[in-house]
Amino acid sequence: MAEEKLPTRAENFADWYNDLVLKAELADYSPVRGCMVVRPYGWTLWENIQGQLDRRFKDTGHVNAAFPLFIPMSFLEKEKEHVKGFAPELAVVTHGGGEKLEEPLVVRPTSETIIGYMYSKWIKSWRDLPVLINQWGNVVRWELRTKLFLRTAEFYWQEGHTAHATEQEAREETLRMLDVYTDFAVNEAAVPVIKGIKSETEKFAGAVMSTTIEAMMQDTKALQSGTSHFLGQNFAKAFEIQFTNQNNELEFCYTTSWGLSTRMIGAIIMTHGDDQGLILPPRLAPIQMVLVPIYKNDAEKASVMEVTNRIWQELKAAGIRIKVDDREGVTPGFKYNDWEMRGVPLRMEIGPKDVEKGSVALARRDKPGREGKSFVSQENIAATVSEMLVNIQAALLERATAMRDSHIHDPKDYEELKQVVQGGWAFSYWCESKACEAKVKEDTKASTRCIPIDGQPEHVGTCIVCGAKAKRKVYFAKAY
Amino acid sequence: MAEEKLPTRAENFADWYNDLVLKAELADYSPVRGCMVVRPYGWTLWENIQGQLDRRFKDTGHVNAAFPLFIPMSFLEKEKEHVKGFAPELAVVTHGGGEKLEEPLVVRPTSETIIGYMYSKWIKSWRDLPVLINQWGNVVRWELRTKLFLRTAEFYWQEGHTAHATEQEAREETLRMLDVYTDFAVNEAAVPVIKGIKSETEKFAGAVMSTTIEAMMQDTKALQSGTSHFLGQNFAKAFEIQFTNQNNELEFCYTTSWGLSTRMIGAIIMTHGDDQGLILPPRLAPIQMVLVPIYKNDAEKASVMEVTNRIWQELKAAGIRIKVDDREGVTPGFKYNDWEMRGVPLRMEIGPKDVEKGSVALARRDKPGREGKSFVSQENIAATVSEMLVNIQAALLERATAMRDSHIHDPKDYEELKQVVQGGWAFSYWCESKACEAKVKEDTKASTRCIPIDGQPEHVGTCIVCGAKAKRKVYFAKAY
Repeated sequence: MAEEKLPTRAENFADWYNDLVLKAELADYSPVRGCMVVRPYGWTLWENIQGQLDRRFKDTGHVNAAFPLFIPMSFLEKEKEHVKGFAPELAVVTHGGGEKLEEPLVVRPTSETIIGYMYSKWIKSWRDLPVLINQWGNVVRWELRTKLFLRTAEFYWQEGHTAHATEQEAREETLRMLDVYTDFAVNEAAVPVIKGIKSETEKFAGAVMSTTIEAMMQDTKALQSGTSHFLGQNFAKAFEIQFTNQNNELEFCYTTSWGLSTRMIGAIIMTHGDDQGLILPPRLAPIQMVLVPIYKNDAEKASVMEVTNRIWQELKAAGIRIKVDDREGVTPGFKYNDWEMRGVPLRMEIGPKDVEKGSVALARRDKPGREGKSFVSQENIAATVSEMLVNIQAALLERATAMRDSHIHDPKDYEELKQVVQGGWAFSYWCESKACEAKVKEDTKASTRCIPIDGQPEHVGTCIVCGAKAKRKVYFAKAY
Repeated sequence: MAEEKLPTRAENFADWYNDLVLKAELADYSPVRGCMVVRPYGWTLWENIQGQLDRRFKDTGHVNAAFPLFIPMSFLEKEKEHVKGFAPELAVVTHGGGEKLEEPLVVRPTSETIIGYMYSKWIKSWRDLPVLINQWGNVVRWELRTKLFLRTAEFYWQEGHTAHATEQEAREETLRMLDVYTDFAVNEAAVPVIKGIKSETEKFAGAVMSTTIEAMMQDTKALQSGTSHFLGQNFAKAFEIQFTNQNNELEFCYTTSWGLSTRMIGAIIMTHGDDQGLILPPRLAPIQMVLVPIYKNDAEKASVMEVTNRIWQELKAAGIRIKVDDREGVTPGFKYNDWEMRGVPLRMEIGPKDVEKGSVALARRDKPGREGKSFVSQENIAATVSEMLVNIQAALLERATAMRDSHIHDPKDYEELKQVVQGGWAFSYWCESKACEAKVKEDTKASTRCIPIDGQPEHVGTCIVCGAKAKRKVYFAKAY
């Protein structure tokens, strides 16, 4: 399979992406319209993402729980904006156990409503607050145009749902979790993201304020990679989530919700991959290093495999995720291509000469050819490999950041904006009116991605579209 | 909440169970018929179960993946026995995105069919075999009479699905995974189980042979706690899972499936709990030890909290899951009851006298009153606590095994069988006819639980029901 070439990114970025997801065996199409199968290699990547996020959730005081897959249709209708946003995308269960249900159940597209209902039962007093719960699971949104990992009818995610006594606490929680996502994206996925606030048009159905982390893919399109919402008292009022405060008065809670999904896998592929295939960040890669033993006869095999096994044990003991590719009947070159396509960050080769010299060859996935190749001693090999994985992780982040920064523009006028969003992002003053936002979308297909929290100018300016006074700058970009 | 007493097990075992699940905040009823909410304390217990099982699955060469929640109705119909077994329990999605679907989708009750379909795409050659995949997820079976953890419309589980080149390999896999379940149940959950083969009547819809681990609850009812099925070529033929063997001939695969669910939480509750509440096995307990500091004034508080914090850090560093209960405004006695109800295996108390003497008090959850109480030195406290947790784990298993063994009977005739299954299990020769099995069920409500793999007599005997020749003995018992 490594023989068949991928289309290059320049030829057709969308085909490159799809082919790569299938060939690297990350995911597959399923016989159910719009649903995907996440294959073991893709799921292990997701498990590593889960592990790193879950650790951060627990460090910030959250616990996990599980709420029902099904939600009574009437629950969604209790929050008017919420049902308006999700109604067109619902999958509906009408029959159970051979009988028609009295009330149809929707398969959860998100769980604010059913969790809100449970919180109203559990929360009585200020002593019960805050409630900080996260759920790992699957959700369903009936999508017409699907794309593996980026937009599928069923997808996998985590959704955090918290309830607080005060507005300030809930707003702090919203931004705390946005910071957790940012930290994860930058330091684990090596995906540089910009954190900011969504426009009124782009915000979550039912939120007071939505925040997001936005990443630039190699085709310069934006990918929303995680969102954190301040829900005010909207869901608390819809579901009567009330508590008795310290003065014995009844108050509504303030709630938040935040989610990150298997979309992140798409972000990783489109941020780091090249024309040879995936490039996975070492901190999340299912396999961090592949070891290819090279020999031509039984005598060579014996000595090479002895060193291979010793090094394998040493690296495994050091906690490095390693695979020995000892397949017979395929050439080393085939193996190299195969693992390059699968994005394993580092390759080690051990041949008869290495055995003699006490050395091994290392080849970095992120730097092709000679540039990425080095010959190192077998001594202290675990330290050498660990250090190289750290370097690869840093290099991936640096490269992606440079790519992004070189494609962010500060157009001098609306005409220039229309040009730059064809191959990059525009960072421009905006009056925050829906009319100007809609005009840009109509003229260019670019939407507002976020009003960044950091890096706003100190002075007011004028809207790039209409020229009115504008307090803040926003990113305009085409998006997935 | 600890003030309200539970009904005792003797008064009403079913009420004791339900009340305990709710009061200990393991789970709650949901507004969706038959579905439960697993609360954080219950979900953390499940996460610990998952961790211990997943480690064993990976050690035996399995990988995880994710298949769609929805299955086309026509898929279920491809395996005749399978659809017959599951049709009455299906939840059916008829509408998506506001439109009626061309073909209804069922919410997976189990995934043999959709996974079989994917395997037929992935498996081409003997080189692709075996395929050893597991999935963690939720499934839905529309149940009329539900009971938290034991029988709910939606539940959580893992389902392993493997494909092999030969019958022998697939049969070995079936028993290997039954052994994994047995090892987990005995050594992690301290639930003694009997592994055996299901009768034809009780086997999985679509299997050639079903195996099970069966546990005895404190009311002497049996709980099926995990199952592993040899599916022969039934699903391979229904879904054309074929491979080219080494002689270049096309053959059907042999497949297996095996699952263990959140039912295991019910098994743990009903095996170990007492009239004061839960008793959780230390290896799975979300909190292994609670530390209650005791003081009457600020001076005492200062010195007690200093020792408390030092010991907390020491135990945490040793990997012990520990919680300090420093709530103000509730008495130590209230705290003791509260944590006893929640089943924390060990309690440490530190008061001013302990500070003076360099000691602490330890109270075992499994041994009430003085018997379980000891005073130990603060020196080497991590080693002392670890050892005690090991002892508690062993004591729970020993007690449960003794309880079970004292309620297994070898009735001399059918009359005696009818009596003993009212408060225990009968281990008797059975001719393996459906008629005798049905007669026992009609007369006593007891079903065949399993034909145990180990401990069969060396000689043939006569069926306890009809007197015909019988090769093997079976367990008859009432069951959940």
